[in-house]
Amino acid sequence: MSATSGRVRVSIVGASGYTGGELLRLLLDHPGAEVLCATSRSLAGQPLHRVHPNLRGRSEMLFTVPEEVPASDAVFLCMPHGEASREIERWLDRARTVIDLSADFRLRDAAVYRAWYEEEHPAPGRLASAVYGLPELHRREMRVGAEPARLISGVGCNATAMNLALLPLARAGLIERAICDIKVGSSEAGAEPSAGSHHPERSGAVRSYAPVGHRHAAEVAQELSGGESGGFPLDVSITSIEMVRGVLCTAHVIPTGRVEMKDLWRAYRGAYSGEPFVRLVAEKSGLHRLPDPKILAGTNYADVGFDIDPRSGRIVALCAIDNLMKGAAGSAVQYMNVAFGLDERAGLGFAGLHPC
Amino acid sequence: MSATSGRVRVSIVGASGYTGGELLRLLLDHPGAEVLCATSRSLAGQPLHRVHPNLRGRSEMLFTVPEEVPASDAVFLCMPHGEASREIERWLDRARTVIDLSADFRLRDAAVYRAWYEEEHPAPGRLASAVYGLPELHRREMRVGAEPARLISGVGCNATAMNLALLPLARAGLIERAICDIKVGSSEAGAEPSAGSHHPERSGAVRSYAPVGHRHAAEVAQELSGGESGGFPLDVSITSIEMVRGVLCTAHVIPTGRVEMKDLWRAYRGAYSGEPFVRLVAEKSGLHRLPDPKILAGTNYADVGFDIDPRSGRIVALCAIDNLMKGAAGSAVQYMNVAFGLDERAGLGFAGLHPC
Amino acid sequence: MSATSGRVRVSIVGASGYTGGELLRLLLDHPGAEVLCATSRSLAGQPLHRVHPNLRGRSEMLFTVPEEVPASDAVFLCMPHGEASREIERWLDRARTVIDLSADFRLRDAAVYRAWYEEEHPAPGRLASAVYGLPELHRREMRVGAEPARLISGVGCNATAMNLALLPLARAGLIERAICDIKVGSSEAGAEPSAGSHHPERSGAVRSYAPVGHRHAAEVAQELSGGESGGFPLDVSITSIEMVRGVLCTAHVIPTGRVEMKDLWRAYRGAYSGEPFVRLVAEKSGLHRLPDPKILAGTNYADVGFDIDPRSGRIVALCAIDNLMKGAAGSAVQYMNVAFGLDERAGLGFAGLHPC
Amino acid sequence: MSATSGRVRVSIVGASGYTGGELLRLLLDHPGAEVLCATSRSLAGQPLHRVHPNLRGRSEMLFTVPEEVPASDAVFLCMPHGEASREIERWLDRARTVIDLSADFRLRDAAVYRAWYEEEHPAPGRLASAVYGLPELHRREMRVGAEPARLISGVGCNATAMNLALLPLARAGLIERAICDIKVGSSEAGAEPSAGSHHPERSGAVRSYAPVGHRHAAEVAQELSGGESGGFPLDVSITSIEMVRGVLCTAHVIPTGRVEMKDLWRAYRGAYSGEPFVRLVAEKSGLHRLPDPKILAGTNYADVGFDIDPRSGRIVALCAIDNLMKGAAGSAVQYMNVAFGLDERAGLGFAGLHPC
Repeated sequence: MSATSGRVRVSIVGASGYTGGELLRLLLDHPGAEVLCATSRSLAGQPLHRVHPNLRGRSEMLFTVPEEVPASDAVFLCMPHGEASREIERWLDRARTVIDLSADFRLRDAAVYRAWYEEEHPAPGRLASAVYGLPELHRREMRVGAEPARLISGVGCNATAMNLALLPLARAGLIERAICDIKVGSSEAGAEPSAGSHHPERSGAVRSYAPVGHRHAAEVAQELSGGESGGFPLDVSITSIEMVRGVLCTAHVIPTGRVEMKDLWRAYRGAYSGEPFVRLVAEKSGLHRLPDPKILAGTNYADVGFDIDPRSGRIVALCAIDNLMKGAAGSAVQYMNVAFGLDERAGLGFAGLHPC
Repeated sequence: MSATSGRVRVSIVGASGYTGGELLRLLLDHPGAEVLCATSRSLAGQPLHRVHPNLRGRSEMLFTVPEEVPASDAVFLCMPHGEASREIERWLDRARTVIDLSADFRLRDAAVYRAWYEEEHPAPGRLASAVYGLPELHRREMRVGAEPARLISGVGCNATAMNLALLPLARAGLIERAICDIKVGSSEAGAEPSAGSHHPERSGAVRSYAPVGHRHAAEVAQELSGGESGGFPLDVSITSIEMVRGVLCTAHVIPTGRVEMKDLWRAYRGAYSGEPFVRLVAEKSGLHRLPDPKILAGTNYADVGFDIDPRSGRIVALCAIDNLMKGAAGSAVQYMNVAFGLDERAGLGFAGLHPC
Repeated sequence: MSATSGRVRVSIVGASGYTGGELLRLLLDHPGAEVLCATSRSLAGQPLHRVHPNLRGRSEMLFTVPEEVPASDAVFLCMPHGEASREIERWLDRARTVIDLSADFRLRDAAVYRAWYEEEHPAPGRLASAVYGLPELHRREMRVGAEPARLISGVGCNATAMNLALLPLARAGLIERAICDIKVGSSEAGAEPSAGSHHPERSGAVRSYAPVGHRHAAEVAQELSGGESGGFPLDVSITSIEMVRGVLCTAHVIPTGRVEMKDLWRAYRGAYSGEPFVRLVAEKSGLHRLPDPKILAGTNYADVGFDIDPRSGRIVALCAIDNLMKGAAGSAVQYMNVAFGLDERAGLGFAGLHPC
Repeated sequence: MSATSGRVRVSIVGASGYTGGELLRLLLDHPGAEVLCATSRSLAGQPLHRVHPNLRGRSEMLFTVPEEVPASDAVFLCMPHGEASREIERWLDRARTVIDLSADFRLRDAAVYRAWYEEEHPAPGRLASAVYGLPELHRREMRVGAEPARLISGVGCNATAMNLALLPLARAGLIERAICDIKVGSSEAGAEPSAGSHHPERSGAVRSYAPVGHRHAAEVAQELSGGESGGFPLDVSITSIEMVRGVLCTAHVIPTGRVEMKDLWRAYRGAYSGEPFVRLVAEKSGLHRLPDPKILAGTNYADVGFDIDPRSGRIVALCAIDNLMKGAAGSAVQYMNVAFGLDERAGLGFAGLHPC
């Protein structure tokens, strides 16, 4: 933290998009942070509320160009895939910690990156030391001694939901095979209009946009197949549904053996007790007995639930998140909190709305 | 009609947009029409279902370029504002009847056109003879003797709802002043993506996109203020709401004197009895007691209702339509049916869905 | 068919619900049918449009009580689960063909029925002879010689989507295991309000309402595991999403061996060429390259598609339908058409809307 | 405030509904309040998250019965219309301040109450002294000296939007006649399911549920027609649209004379500068140039905008709110803050989400 202000001084690069806007919403109200600047080349000189109408009256700040980013405690990078890795040294020079929300530093192995992204990684030397931003797995690497990690990578929003649905089962060695059927909203595709996001086309669509081959599978495999968990085949299928924010991962798990609900409770409680943003939602009845992203908009919660098919023994593991929060900006603030020794919950207290 | 086929041979120019797609849906199944061609410069050579997925398996036709449009009984023009009027002579040469769905030929007075569209009309000589396509007012002009009218102009979708809500009151001289508060869906803006139509922005929006000054006011004033009705001030306000298809016009009418429900019933029944596509919906109770565009998607109905404020005497006149049907393509087929002496209902029999 | 009218004379029992309303919409406009009566005990004497607002102006018929159903060619039963089987003899006495849209006669084995519905079947003697209403499998049993089948059972709406997604793979012996992740709309639950259907709760929900143990699994197992296909484990998971009409079945299939796209094309074309209501939708690109229920509202189409995961070999088989049409009333009219020797497409010609 | 805790000790009566849930969300996180109890007769003994799933993990509190409400600094009453006024003495005995969110104490004149609610008021003696809860008009009455007002009445959600759209114009004497066309979401009708709230019926509806005669007109007339503003005819029309939370009031104002935008800016700035929760949104361009309830969900803002029709001179005044927040629970917390001398913004800092 800065000696002068006592607050973490942060800059946001690429702040005109949805993730940037969400970071601004969180950090402008954060009790332990001070926003130094927010960049947008196309909107430089304009007020934040031009594209983030919810921030009207909340800040007098104007967008600036990236060249004007001052030395900062933390720089958040919200750039298109492939750009952050090209500029990473520059940003590491400008900040004690860089938190990159693109896909560039999620995979530790440059060969795996090449296989899934079909190009060479521009900064392979930084891959191994980037911390994969899943606090539930890597909290201790985010702050080493009294120092924040140098480079923390955001997690794919769909990968977050998969990771948190499956982690306890993977740790317990219960997964023979997993098929993740993921339902997502339209904000996942970002703020740029396209034919597919045109309202008359997108409204009410149930679009199988990535029934096979989604890249987020690679990072989940990396995180859950190593070490204690052992490997298992992982399939991913993504369906766009009528929703703006939100992800629900329905993970169909063929177990390595017969399990009962009490085994699942033990595994999930063991993994998540003490986690400030993971709630177990697995009741026997009621409208809200299982996770639903509908009530998570704006929150940093990951609601996790599970059930077992009494006939086939299949486990259904569920995780719901807000893709822009726990799936992006909310997690990023959580990393910052951990990295700088703040209360991990700081700035992330919104409970969510019901009804909505 | 063609001597050979016994069917009206039609061509659709600009068939890749929403109105063009709707015309194709209607005309491919029309018992008295034969679709000769559908043009789209950018999609020439591709099957219709590339952009009209509902037509998959319904036709083997490919899009063609406009130059290939053959001599036709009727040509439907679905072009951006300002283009049809530039090419109108060419199309009149190619067809017995041209039905233009743009805004180019709705206003009969070139000076009024200039005032609202802020440019000179390219074909002012055609304005006076173009038939304004409201069958409820101009049916007799659409077919003169045994001949179809040469040029019929579509009506603005919002204007259609205003016209049909207000026509009986205007005829009865009951309007002192009218303020039309119109709720519209996203398909009104057409098939081109834009920042405003981007799903995360448009979904759930209640956007006052034209609170004042909408052009459709001009044509309604033209139609309802002349002749028997006498003039009255007309205000229009358009709000975009969560809906793809549909228009609801809520016309708040300050009456010239005290009226009662029986007066309204007389006026509306007088105007619309015998009209094949206008239904009166003004019941005392029930969920569906007044018009709602929700149940009109795909139909050519205009549902019209009314009520009176017992305290202030204000009349509320309502009209709901599907903007792509009674507000565009459906009406256009209705014109064709009238112009060529077919059953006015032909090809327009879909009842609409409930629930939906 | 009746000697006098030349049309199939039909009666609809339980016509106030969503399936009944959809049957009325279809049959009132059917060129080969005549609707004799529509029953609703609670609405007897009231016009159809009281609860089916889309039928306003389409029929003067009033609801009647079930006791007044006359002798009919076909009786359609739209009753709650467990009621049709209690009254089945009465209705068989009243009609040449009974088409039951409840779940009562879908399972041929009374023991299987007991296992899934947890009660004894009231009319077990009728189970074996009821025709399971999947024309793609049982068309020939619906009309034997010149006689319609006596009792045809509707298929579960979710089961329809599963059956049609999986049938070609099952026939080809390609399924080692199948997990069907099904997305459904709110009309599946019928016309009765409940806490779960309350708009503020249901709107935008992504509700895992049956992650395990859904009954429709039983009938799909019955149909696809017998005879030529051989058995395979089948798992079903149902998620309610923001949608009124529509089902998308995403079937994740672990294949018995490595398959390629050309194998799938062969299997699906073999099964469905000549089927009037099954369309194959499996393109390489485009917004509409795979089935989407959004464009099927009101149609009787089942759009079927497929893809293969290049890494894992998993097959994704997709089927989209309108649950009230191909999943209920539309199929029922299709049965009637087949049973009475009419054109199988009669009354089912609606193409569907786009955009919508 | 309590001597012991230094916090305002509050109880919520009728806490299972939507307003009660929203109060719980706000007050459980309020830095200056302590929630003593939340009552629900039907849910007594159950955790709050049974019906308020967003509160899962936020509180261990269980619902209690109303008889167990302890002496409190403030009691919030969230009861059906007509009940609070029957029990008002009991609650005034139990608390220093009662904040009633029903419609019972909004009208100061028992005769006006009778005229609009068609029954005698049960506690007419309390009407005159109840403070009408519009801080922008009655802030000074909410805290007199160092004492909170004894009884503060919530404002109708639609009335809030009308009041705030029209107040500056009324004060400036600019209103000849006003017609408020109000668009509302489904949560206005509360948490009880009904035929009209059944998702398949309500989804996508554009329902003219109160085109004339809405009761909220009475309170707006009371507030804006007295004293400095002078009277004017006020018409109200309410349309339900696809939305859960939110109100947009589009007030069509026929002005007493010609006005220009600078006059409006002066009137609105004069009325609202310094108001913590009113934002002026009246830009010349941009997607978010005018108020939209979409971005206000969960916030206590009232966004107010205006425009002038260049042809007719009609003023369009707009106000957007979240009906459960500024239209109910948020305002109630604002009253409490004022009444007890806390920071008026306390507990109401949520900025709102975009996109959403």
